Amino acid sequence: MQRGYGIFDFFKFKDSRPVFLDDHLDRFYKSAEEMRLNINYSRDQLKDVLHTLITKNNIADGGIRITVTGGYSPDGFQLNQPNLVISQHTFPSPTKEQFEKGIELISYPHQRQMPHVKSIDYLMAIWLQPLIRQHNADDVLYQKDGIVSECPRSNFFIVTKNNTIITPAENILKGVSRMKLIDIAKKYFQVEEKIITLDDIANAKEAFISSTTKLLLPVFRIDGTILKGETTVAAKLHDELDNLSRSS
Amino acid sequence: MQRGYGIFDFFKFKDSRPVFLDDHLDRFYKSAEEMRLNINYSRDQLKDVLHTLITKNNIADGGIRITVTGGYSPDGFQLNQPNLVISQHTFPSPTKEQFEKGIELISYPHQRQMPHVKSIDYLMAIWLQPLIRQHNADDVLYQKDGIVSECPRSNFFIVTKNNTIITPAENILKGVSRMKLIDIAKKYFQVEEKIITLDDIANAKEAFISSTTKLLLPVFRIDGTILKGETTVAAKLHDELDNLSRSS
Repeated sequence: MQRGYGIFDFFKFKDSRPVFLDDHLDRFYKSAEEMRLNINYSRDQLKDVLHTLITKNNIADGGIRITVTGGYSPDGFQLNQPNLVISQHTFPSPTKEQFEKGIELISYPHQRQMPHVKSIDYLMAIWLQPLIRQHNADDVLYQKDGIVSECPRSNFFIVTKNNTIITPAENILKGVSRMKLIDIAKKYFQVEEKIITLDDIANAKEAFISSTTKLLLPVFRIDGTILKGETTVAAKLHDELDNLSRSS
Repeated sequence: MQRGYGIFDFFKFKDSRPVFLDDHLDRFYKSAEEMRLNINYSRDQLKDVLHTLITKNNIADGGIRITVTGGYSPDGFQLNQPNLVISQHTFPSPTKEQFEKGIELISYPHQRQMPHVKSIDYLMAIWLQPLIRQHNADDVLYQKDGIVSECPRSNFFIVTKNNTIITPAENILKGVSRMKLIDIAKKYFQVEEKIITLDDIANAKEAFISSTTKLLLPVFRIDGTILKGETTVAAKLHDELDNLSRSS
Protein backbone atom coordinates (compact mmCIF):
# COMPACT_ATOMS: atom_id res chain seq x y z
CA MET A 1 0.00 0.00 0.00
CA GLN A 2 2.91 2.32 0.71
CA ARG A 3 4.29 1.75 -2.80
CA GLY A 4 1.03 1.67 -4.74
CA TYR A 5 1.38 -1.99 -5.69
CA GLY A 6 -1.90 -3.85 -5.88
CA ILE A 7 -4.80 -5.05 -7.99
CA PHE A 8 -8.52 -5.25 -7.46
CA ASP A 9 -11.75 -6.14 -9.12
CA PHE A 10 -15.25 -4.86 -8.59
CA PHE A 11 -18.55 -6.47 -9.46
CA LYS A 12 -22.20 -5.81 -8.83
CA PHE A 13 -24.68 -7.95 -7.01
CA LYS A 14 -28.45 -7.74 -7.44
CA ASP A 15 -30.97 -9.47 -5.18
CA SER A 16 -27.95 -10.94 -3.37
CA ARG A 17 -26.66 -12.52 -6.61
CA PRO A 18 -23.26 -11.46 -8.03
CA VAL A 19 -23.45 -10.26 -11.64
CA PHE A 20 -21.00 -11.69 -14.19
CA LEU A 21 -18.98 -13.07 -11.29
CA ASP A 22 -17.00 -15.61 -13.28
CA ASP A 23 -15.94 -12.99 -15.81
CA HIS A 24 -14.76 -10.72 -12.99
CA LEU A 25 -12.92 -13.59 -11.29
CA ASP A 26 -11.29 -14.49 -14.63
CA ARG A 27 -9.92 -10.97 -14.84
CA PHE A 28 -9.06 -10.87 -11.15
CA TYR A 29 -6.85 -13.97 -11.34
CA LYS A 30 -5.32 -12.68 -14.59
CA SER A 31 -4.45 -9.30 -13.02
CA ALA A 32 -2.94 -11.09 -10.02
CA GLU A 33 -0.83 -13.35 -12.22
CA GLU A 34 0.42 -10.46 -14.35
CA MET A 35 1.38 -8.57 -11.20
CA ARG A 36 3.03 -11.66 -9.66
CA LEU A 37 0.62 -11.68 -6.73
CA ASN A 38 -0.01 -15.20 -5.54
CA ILE A 39 -3.68 -15.71 -4.58
CA ASN A 40 -4.01 -18.39 -1.92
CA TYR A 41 -7.73 -18.83 -2.50
CA SER A 42 -9.27 -20.97 -5.21
CA ARG A 43 -12.20 -19.65 -7.21
CA ASP A 44 -14.58 -21.82 -5.19
CA GLN A 45 -13.14 -20.65 -1.89
CA LEU A 46 -13.53 -17.01 -2.96
CA LYS A 47 -17.11 -17.66 -4.04
CA ASP A 48 -17.86 -19.18 -0.64
CA VAL A 49 -16.40 -16.15 1.15
CA LEU A 50 -18.35 -13.78 -1.10
CA HIS A 51 -21.57 -15.66 -0.46
CA THR A 52 -20.99 -15.53 3.30
CA LEU A 53 -20.22 -11.81 3.14
CA ILE A 54 -23.36 -10.94 1.18
CA THR A 55 -25.50 -13.09 3.50
CA LYS A 56 -24.02 -11.73 6.74
CA ASN A 57 -24.10 -8.10 5.63
CA ASN A 58 -27.66 -8.59 4.46
CA ILE A 59 -27.25 -5.99 1.70
CA ALA A 60 -29.10 -7.18 -1.38
CA ASP A 61 -27.84 -4.68 -3.98
CA GLY A 62 -24.48 -3.00 -4.42
CA GLY A 63 -20.91 -3.86 -5.30
CA ILE A 64 -18.07 -5.92 -3.95
CA ARG A 65 -14.42 -5.00 -4.23
CA ILE A 66 -11.66 -7.59 -3.91
CA THR A 67 -8.30 -5.90 -3.34
CA VAL A 68 -4.91 -7.62 -3.28
CA THR A 69 -1.70 -5.88 -2.25
CA GLY A 70 1.96 -6.88 -2.24
CA GLY A 71 1.93 -7.89 1.42
CA TYR A 72 4.22 -7.03 4.32
CA SER A 73 7.46 -6.58 2.41
CA PRO A 74 10.71 -6.62 4.39
CA ASP A 75 12.20 -3.80 2.27
CA GLY A 76 9.14 -2.31 0.60
CA PHE A 77 10.21 -3.74 -2.75
CA GLN A 78 10.26 -7.54 -2.56
CA LEU A 79 6.78 -9.02 -2.76
CA ASN A 80 5.59 -11.06 0.19
CA GLN A 81 2.48 -13.19 0.67
CA PRO A 82 -0.22 -10.80 -0.63
CA ASN A 83 -2.95 -9.38 1.57
CA LEU A 84 -6.49 -9.85 0.33
CA VAL A 85 -9.35 -7.59 1.41
CA ILE A 86 -12.98 -8.00 0.38
CA SER A 87 -15.30 -5.08 1.01
CA GLN A 88 -18.95 -4.51 0.23
CA HIS A 89 -20.40 -1.21 -0.90
CA THR A 90 -23.65 0.29 -2.02
CA PHE A 91 -23.84 2.57 -5.03
CA PRO A 92 -26.75 4.15 -6.89
CA SER A 93 -27.94 2.27 -9.97
CA PRO A 94 -27.74 4.23 -13.24
CA THR A 95 -31.08 5.85 -14.03
CA LYS A 96 -33.03 6.52 -17.22
CA GLU A 97 -32.45 10.25 -16.63
CA GLN A 98 -28.69 9.74 -16.60
CA PHE A 99 -28.89 7.93 -19.91
CA GLU A 100 -30.97 10.72 -21.44
CA LYS A 101 -28.70 13.42 -20.08
CA GLY A 102 -25.60 11.62 -21.32
CA ILE A 103 -22.12 12.68 -20.27
CA GLU A 104 -19.42 15.11 -21.29
CA LEU A 105 -15.76 14.12 -21.51
CA ILE A 106 -12.51 16.02 -21.76
CA SER A 107 -9.56 14.33 -23.44
CA TYR A 108 -6.18 14.28 -21.76
CA PRO A 109 -2.79 12.98 -22.96
CA HIS A 110 -2.01 9.98 -20.78
CA GLN A 111 -1.34 6.28 -21.10
CA ARG A 112 -1.88 4.10 -18.03
CA GLN A 113 1.05 1.88 -17.09
CA MET A 114 0.29 -1.85 -17.50
CA PRO A 115 -3.15 -0.92 -18.84
CA HIS A 116 -4.37 -4.53 -19.20
CA VAL A 117 -4.05 -5.00 -15.41
CA LYS A 118 -6.73 -3.67 -13.05
CA SER A 119 -4.15 -2.13 -10.74
CA ILE A 120 -4.88 0.32 -7.92
CA ASP A 121 -3.02 3.08 -9.80
CA TYR A 122 -5.52 5.93 -10.21
CA LEU A 123 -3.01 8.71 -9.59
CA MET A 124 -3.70 10.57 -12.84
CA ALA A 125 -7.46 9.99 -12.70
CA ILE A 126 -7.71 11.52 -9.24
CA TRP A 127 -5.29 14.30 -10.05
CA LEU A 128 -7.46 15.29 -13.03
CA GLN A 129 -10.69 15.63 -11.02
CA PRO A 130 -10.39 19.42 -10.57
CA LEU A 131 -9.74 19.85 -14.32
CA ILE A 132 -12.83 17.77 -15.09
CA ARG A 133 -14.96 19.88 -12.75
CA GLN A 134 -13.48 23.09 -14.13
CA HIS A 135 -14.75 22.10 -17.59
CA ASN A 136 -18.12 21.02 -16.19
CA ALA A 137 -17.35 17.59 -17.60
CA ASP A 138 -18.12 14.19 -16.10
CA ASP A 139 -14.96 12.26 -16.85
CA VAL A 140 -11.70 12.21 -18.77
CA LEU A 141 -10.89 10.25 -21.93
CA TYR A 142 -7.21 9.34 -22.14
CA GLN A 143 -5.52 9.84 -25.52
CA LYS A 144 -1.99 9.70 -26.82
CA ASP A 145 -1.04 11.49 -30.04
CA GLY A 146 -4.74 11.79 -30.82
CA ILE A 147 -5.43 8.06 -30.42
CA VAL A 148 -7.92 7.46 -27.62
CA SER A 149 -7.75 4.53 -25.24
CA GLU A 150 -10.24 4.58 -22.34
CA CYS A 151 -11.68 6.51 -19.44
CA PRO A 152 -10.18 5.81 -15.99
CA ARG A 153 -13.08 3.56 -15.00
CA SER A 154 -14.88 2.79 -18.26
CA ASN A 155 -14.36 1.71 -21.86
CA PHE A 156 -15.14 3.86 -24.86
CA PHE A 157 -17.11 3.11 -28.05
CA ILE A 158 -18.21 4.97 -31.15
CA VAL A 159 -20.80 4.15 -33.81
CA THR A 160 -19.87 5.22 -37.33
CA LYS A 161 -22.28 6.60 -39.92
CA ASN A 162 -22.68 3.14 -41.44
CA ASN A 163 -23.54 1.64 -38.03
CA THR A 164 -20.19 -0.01 -37.37
CA ILE A 165 -19.35 -0.11 -33.67
CA ILE A 166 -15.70 0.56 -32.88
CA THR A 167 -13.87 0.26 -29.56
CA PRO A 168 -10.10 0.39 -28.91
CA ALA A 169 -8.33 -2.96 -28.59
CA GLU A 170 -4.91 -1.87 -27.35
CA ASN A 171 -3.55 -0.07 -24.29
CA ILE A 172 -6.78 -0.49 -22.33
CA LEU A 173 -8.25 -2.47 -19.49
CA LYS A 174 -10.72 -4.85 -21.06
CA GLY A 175 -13.89 -4.31 -19.04
CA VAL A 176 -16.42 -7.04 -18.40
CA SER A 177 -19.20 -4.73 -19.60
CA ARG A 178 -17.14 -4.03 -22.71
CA MET A 179 -16.89 -7.74 -23.44
CA LYS A 180 -20.61 -8.29 -22.87
CA LEU A 181 -21.47 -5.29 -25.09
CA ILE A 182 -19.28 -6.58 -27.91
CA ASP A 183 -21.03 -9.95 -27.73
CA ILE A 184 -24.46 -8.33 -27.76
CA ALA A 185 -23.56 -5.86 -30.51
CA LYS A 186 -22.23 -8.58 -32.82
CA LYS A 187 -25.73 -9.99 -33.10
CA TYR A 188 -26.93 -6.83 -34.86
CA PHE A 189 -23.98 -4.78 -36.06
CA GLN A 190 -20.50 -4.87 -37.50
CA VAL A 191 -18.10 -4.59 -34.51
CA GLU A 192 -14.44 -3.69 -34.86
CA GLU A 193 -11.80 -3.55 -32.14
CA LYS A 194 -9.34 -1.03 -33.51
CA ILE A 195 -7.84 2.44 -33.16
CA ILE A 196 -10.15 5.42 -32.59
CA THR A 197 -8.81 8.93 -33.12
CA LEU A 198 -10.25 12.17 -31.77
CA ASP A 199 -11.23 12.96 -35.39
CA ASP A 200 -13.16 9.68 -35.62
CA ILE A 201 -15.20 10.75 -32.59
CA ALA A 202 -16.09 14.11 -34.13
CA ASN A 203 -17.46 12.27 -37.16
CA ALA A 204 -19.21 9.48 -35.26
CA LYS A 205 -22.99 9.15 -35.12
CA GLU A 206 -22.88 7.96 -31.51
CA ALA A 207 -20.34 7.68 -28.72
CA PHE A 208 -20.77 5.93 -25.40
CA ILE A 209 -18.94 4.46 -22.43
CA SER A 210 -19.48 1.22 -20.53
CA SER A 211 -18.66 0.13 -17.00
CA THR A 212 -19.90 -2.09 -14.20
CA THR A 213 -21.35 0.79 -12.19
CA LYS A 214 -22.59 2.96 -15.08
CA LEU A 215 -23.68 0.18 -17.44
CA LEU A 216 -23.79 2.27 -20.65
CA LEU A 217 -23.97 6.05 -20.93
CA PRO A 218 -24.02 8.11 -24.15
CA VAL A 219 -21.30 10.74 -24.62
CA PHE A 220 -22.74 14.00 -25.94
CA ARG A 221 -19.76 16.31 -25.73
CA ILE A 222 -15.97 16.00 -25.91
CA ASP A 223 -13.63 18.90 -25.15
CA GLY A 224 -16.58 21.28 -25.39
CA THR A 225 -17.58 20.11 -28.86
CA ILE A 226 -21.13 18.83 -29.18
CA LEU A 227 -21.20 15.42 -30.89
CA LYS A 228 -23.90 14.21 -33.25
CA GLY A 229 -25.41 12.62 -30.19
CA GLU A 230 -27.76 9.99 -31.56
CA THR A 231 -28.61 7.19 -29.14
CA THR A 232 -30.38 4.59 -31.26
CA VAL A 233 -27.60 2.00 -31.05
CA ALA A 234 -26.63 2.99 -27.49
CA ALA A 235 -30.22 2.56 -26.23
CA LYS A 236 -30.59 -0.84 -27.83
CA LEU A 237 -27.29 -2.10 -26.40
CA HIS A 238 -28.00 -0.54 -23.01
CA ASP A 239 -31.29 -2.35 -22.67
CA GLU A 240 -29.85 -5.68 -23.72
CA LEU A 241 -26.91 -5.31 -21.33
CA ASP A 242 -29.28 -4.32 -18.53
CA ASN A 243 -31.42 -7.40 -19.18
CA LEU A 244 -28.40 -9.65 -19.37
CA SER A 245 -27.03 -8.33 -16.07
CA ARG A 246 -30.41 -8.93 -14.38
CA SER A 247 -30.65 -12.48 -15.62
CA SER A 248 -27.04 -13.58 -15.23
CA MET B 1 -4.42 4.07 -0.36
CA GLN B 2 -6.95 2.05 -2.34
CA ARG B 3 -6.35 4.20 -5.42
CA GLY B 4 -2.59 4.67 -5.13
CA TYR B 5 -2.85 8.40 -4.48
CA GLY B 6 -0.22 9.74 -2.13
CA ILE B 7 3.17 11.34 -1.66
CA PHE B 8 6.00 10.84 0.76
CA ASP B 9 9.48 11.94 1.61
CA PHE B 10 12.29 10.12 3.30
CA PHE B 11 15.32 11.52 5.06
CA LYS B 12 18.15 10.18 7.18
CA PHE B 13 19.00 11.05 10.75
CA LYS B 14 22.41 10.55 12.29
CA ASP B 15 23.12 10.84 16.01
CA SER B 16 19.46 11.83 16.40
CA ARG B 17 19.91 14.74 13.98
CA PRO B 18 17.92 14.82 10.72
CA VAL B 19 20.13 15.21 7.62
CA PHE B 20 19.22 17.87 5.02
CA LEU B 21 15.82 18.16 6.69
CA ASP B 22 14.89 21.53 5.22
CA ASP B 23 15.66 20.34 1.70
CA HIS B 24 13.47 17.30 2.25
CA LEU B 25 10.67 19.39 3.71
CA ASP B 26 10.95 21.79 0.76
CA ARG B 27 10.35 18.88 -1.58
CA PHE B 28 7.68 17.38 0.68
CA TYR B 29 5.55 20.52 0.64
CA LYS B 30 6.13 20.90 -3.10
CA SER B 31 5.00 17.31 -3.80
CA ALA B 32 1.94 17.87 -1.63
CA GLU B 33 1.03 21.08 -3.43
CA GLU B 34 1.48 19.52 -6.88
CA MET B 35 -0.75 16.64 -5.83
CA ARG B 36 -3.33 18.98 -4.28
CA LEU B 37 -2.87 17.49 -0.83
CA ASN B 38 -3.40 20.07 1.84
CA ILE B 39 -0.90 19.67 4.71
CA ASN B 40 -2.36 20.93 7.99
CA TYR B 41 1.02 21.11 9.71
CA SER B 42 3.46 23.96 9.37
CA ARG B 43 7.14 23.24 8.90
CA ASP B 44 7.81 24.04 12.55
CA GLN B 45 5.01 21.79 13.74
CA LEU B 46 6.36 18.93 11.64
CA LYS B 47 9.85 19.51 12.99
CA ASP B 48 8.50 19.35 16.55
CA VAL B 49 6.72 16.07 15.84
CA LEU B 50 9.84 14.63 14.21
CA HIS B 51 11.96 15.64 17.16
CA THR B 52 9.52 14.04 19.60
CA LEU B 53 9.43 10.85 17.53
CA ILE B 54 13.21 10.50 17.36
CA THR B 55 13.51 11.19 21.10
CA LYS B 56 10.73 8.81 22.15
CA ASN B 57 11.84 5.98 19.86
CA ASN B 58 15.39 6.45 21.07
CA ILE B 59 16.83 5.32 17.73
CA ALA B 60 19.84 7.46 16.89
CA ASP B 61 20.48 6.43 13.27
CA GLY B 62 18.10 5.53 10.49
CA GLY B 63 15.45 7.11 8.31
CA ILE B 64 12.08 8.77 8.68
CA ARG B 65 9.29 8.52 6.17
CA ILE B 66 6.48 11.07 6.03
CA THR B 67 3.57 9.74 3.98
CA VAL B 68 0.47 11.68 2.96
CA THR B 69 -2.55 10.09 1.31
CA GLY B 70 -5.77 11.43 -0.20
CA GLY B 71 -7.78 10.82 2.96
CA TYR B 72 -11.12 9.14 3.54
CA SER B 73 -12.78 9.94 0.23
CA PRO B 74 -16.57 9.57 0.00
CA ASP B 75 -16.37 8.08 -3.51
CA GLY B 76 -12.71 7.05 -3.78
CA PHE B 77 -12.03 9.88 -6.23
CA GLN B 78 -12.65 13.20 -4.53
CA LEU B 79 -9.82 14.20 -2.23
CA ASN B 80 -10.62 14.67 1.43
CA GLN B 81 -8.52 15.98 4.31
CA PRO B 82 -5.26 14.06 3.77
CA ASN B 83 -3.96 11.49 6.24
CA LEU B 84 -0.37 12.00 7.39
CA VAL B 85 1.74 9.16 8.75
CA ILE B 86 5.28 9.49 10.08
CA SER B 87 7.26 6.28 10.54
CA GLN B 88 10.81 5.66 11.64
CA HIS B 89 13.05 2.96 10.18
CA THR B 90 16.55 1.67 10.45
CA PHE B 91 18.58 0.86 7.37
CA PRO B 92 22.20 -0.15 6.86
CA SER B 93 24.60 2.67 6.01
CA PRO B 94 26.38 2.29 2.68
CA THR B 95 29.84 0.75 3.16
CA LYS B 96 33.24 1.23 1.55
CA GLU B 97 32.90 -2.31 0.13
CA GLN B 98 29.65 -1.39 -1.61
CA PHE B 99 31.34 1.59 -3.20
CA GLU B 100 34.25 -0.55 -4.40
CA LYS B 101 31.98 -3.27 -5.70
CA GLY B 102 29.78 -0.74 -7.51
CA ILE B 103 26.45 -1.69 -9.00
CA GLU B 104 25.02 -3.12 -12.18
CA LEU B 105 21.94 -1.67 -13.88
CA ILE B 106 19.58 -2.85 -16.55
CA SER B 107 17.77 -0.28 -18.64
CA TYR B 108 14.03 -0.51 -19.17
CA PRO B 109 11.66 1.58 -21.30
CA HIS B 110 9.47 3.46 -18.86
CA GLN B 111 8.60 7.02 -17.91
CA ARG B 112 7.17 7.66 -14.43
CA GLN B 113 3.92 9.63 -14.37
CA MET B 114 4.32 13.06 -12.70
CA PRO B 115 8.04 12.36 -12.28
CA HIS B 116 8.80 15.59 -10.40
CA VAL B 117 6.49 14.49 -7.57
CA LYS B 118 7.65 11.96 -4.97
CA SER B 119 4.46 9.94 -5.26
CA ILE B 120 3.88 6.48 -3.80
CA ASP B 121 3.67 5.02 -7.33
CA TYR B 122 6.34 2.30 -7.49
CA LEU B 123 4.25 -0.14 -9.51
CA MET B 124 6.78 -0.56 -12.33
CA ALA B 125 9.80 -0.58 -10.00
CA ILE B 126 8.38 -3.43 -7.94
CA TRP B 127 7.11 -5.29 -10.98
CA LEU B 128 10.64 -5.21 -12.45
CA GLN B 129 12.34 -6.74 -9.40
CA PRO B 130 12.32 -10.32 -10.81
CA LEU B 131 13.81 -9.07 -14.10
CA ILE B 132 16.55 -7.27 -12.19
CA ARG B 133 17.38 -10.42 -10.19
CA GLN B 134 17.27 -12.53 -13.35
CA HIS B 135 20.04 -10.36 -14.83
CA ASN B 136 21.99 -10.40 -11.56
CA ALA B 137 21.66 -6.63 -11.59
CA ASP B 138 21.09 -4.26 -8.66
CA ASP B 139 18.58 -1.84 -10.07
CA VAL B 140 16.85 -0.58 -13.18
CA LEU B 141 17.58 2.60 -15.14
CA TYR B 142 14.48 3.97 -16.87
CA GLN B 143 14.90 5.14 -20.46
CA LYS B 144 12.61 6.26 -23.22
CA ASP B 145 13.72 6.11 -26.85
CA GLY B 146 17.29 5.70 -25.61
CA ILE B 147 17.19 8.79 -23.38
CA VAL B 148 17.73 7.85 -19.75
CA SER B 149 15.96 9.52 -16.85
CA GLU B 150 16.53 7.95 -13.43
CA CYS B 151 16.47 4.83 -11.32
CA PRO B 152 13.30 4.21 -9.26
CA ARG B 153 14.94 5.46 -6.07
CA SER B 154 18.06 7.29 -7.23
CA ASN B 155 19.39 9.82 -9.71
CA PHE B 156 21.88 9.04 -12.42
CA PHE B 157 25.12 10.80 -13.43
CA ILE B 158 27.93 10.28 -15.92
CA VAL B 159 31.41 11.80 -16.19
CA THR B 160 32.60 12.42 -19.74
CA LYS B 161 36.16 11.96 -20.97
CA ASN B 162 36.86 15.66 -20.42
CA ASN B 163 35.60 15.47 -16.83
CA THR B 164 32.22 17.08 -17.42
CA ILE B 165 29.56 15.77 -15.08
CA ILE B 166 26.17 15.29 -16.69
CA THR B 167 22.85 14.40 -15.08
CA PRO B 168 19.36 14.49 -16.63
CA ALA B 169 17.27 17.59 -15.93
CA GLU B 170 13.88 16.53 -17.28
CA ASN B 171 11.35 13.81 -16.47
CA ILE B 172 12.97 12.97 -13.15
CA LEU B 173 12.47 13.36 -9.44
CA LYS B 174 15.08 15.86 -8.29
CA GLY B 175 16.74 14.14 -5.37
CA VAL B 176 18.18 16.02 -2.43
CA SER B 177 21.46 14.09 -2.79
CA ARG B 178 21.45 15.00 -6.50
CA MET B 179 21.16 18.69 -5.61
CA LYS B 180 23.90 18.47 -3.01
CA LEU B 181 26.18 16.60 -5.44
CA ILE B 182 25.65 19.19 -8.15
CA ASP B 183 26.61 21.94 -5.70
CA ILE B 184 29.71 20.06 -4.59
CA ALA B 185 30.72 19.11 -8.12
CA LYS B 186 30.46 22.66 -9.40
CA LYS B 187 33.39 23.62 -7.19
CA TYR B 188 35.71 21.35 -9.18
CA PHE B 189 34.13 20.39 -12.48
CA GLN B 190 31.94 21.49 -15.34
CA VAL B 191 28.40 20.31 -14.49
CA GLU B 192 25.61 20.09 -17.05
CA GLU B 193 21.99 19.16 -16.49
CA LYS B 194 20.96 17.77 -19.86
CA ILE B 195 19.95 14.70 -21.83
CA ILE B 196 21.96 11.49 -21.41
CA THR B 197 21.55 8.73 -23.99
CA LEU B 198 22.46 5.06 -23.56
CA ASP B 199 25.29 5.73 -26.06
CA ASP B 200 26.62 8.54 -23.85
CA ILE B 201 26.89 6.07 -20.98
CA ALA B 202 28.87 3.57 -23.06
CA ASN B 203 31.40 6.31 -23.81
CA ALA B 204 31.51 7.80 -20.31
CA LYS B 205 34.55 7.54 -18.07
CA GLU B 206 32.42 7.14 -14.98
CA ALA B 207 28.79 6.56 -14.13
CA PHE B 208 27.16 6.71 -10.71
CA ILE B 209 23.86 7.01 -8.86
CA SER B 210 22.92 9.08 -5.83
CA SER B 211 20.23 8.69 -3.18
CA THR B 212 19.53 9.38 0.46
CA THR B 213 20.04 5.75 1.51
CA LYS B 214 22.88 4.85 -0.88
CA LEU B 215 24.69 8.20 -0.89
CA LEU B 216 26.74 7.65 -4.08
CA LEU B 217 27.51 4.34 -5.76
CA PRO B 218 29.51 3.81 -8.98
CA VAL B 219 27.80 1.99 -11.86
CA PHE B 220 30.13 -0.58 -13.43
CA ARG B 221 27.80 -2.39 -15.80
CA ILE B 222 24.68 -1.55 -17.79
CA ASP B 223 22.68 -4.20 -19.67
CA GLY B 224 25.59 -6.60 -19.27
CA THR B 225 28.11 -4.22 -20.85
CA ILE B 226 31.11 -3.38 -18.70
CA LEU B 227 31.63 0.39 -18.51
CA LYS B 228 34.99 2.13 -18.32
CA GLY B 229 34.44 2.09 -14.61
CA GLU B 230 36.81 4.74 -13.29
CA THR B 231 35.87 6.14 -9.88
CA THR B 232 38.15 9.14 -9.43
CA VAL B 233 35.38 11.73 -9.65
CA ALA B 234 32.81 9.49 -7.94
CA ALA B 235 35.10 8.88 -4.94
CA LYS B 236 35.82 12.58 -4.52
CA LEU B 237 32.14 13.53 -4.69
CA HIS B 238 31.16 10.63 -2.45
CA ASP B 239 33.52 11.70 0.30
CA GLU B 240 32.44 15.33 0.16
CA LEU B 241 28.76 14.36 0.21
CA ASP B 242 29.40 12.02 3.11
CA ASN B 243 31.16 14.78 5.04
CA LEU B 244 28.43 17.26 4.25
CA SER B 245 25.69 14.88 5.43
CA ARG B 246 27.58 14.29 8.69
CA SER B 247 27.98 17.97 9.39
CA SER B 248 24.59 19.24 8.23
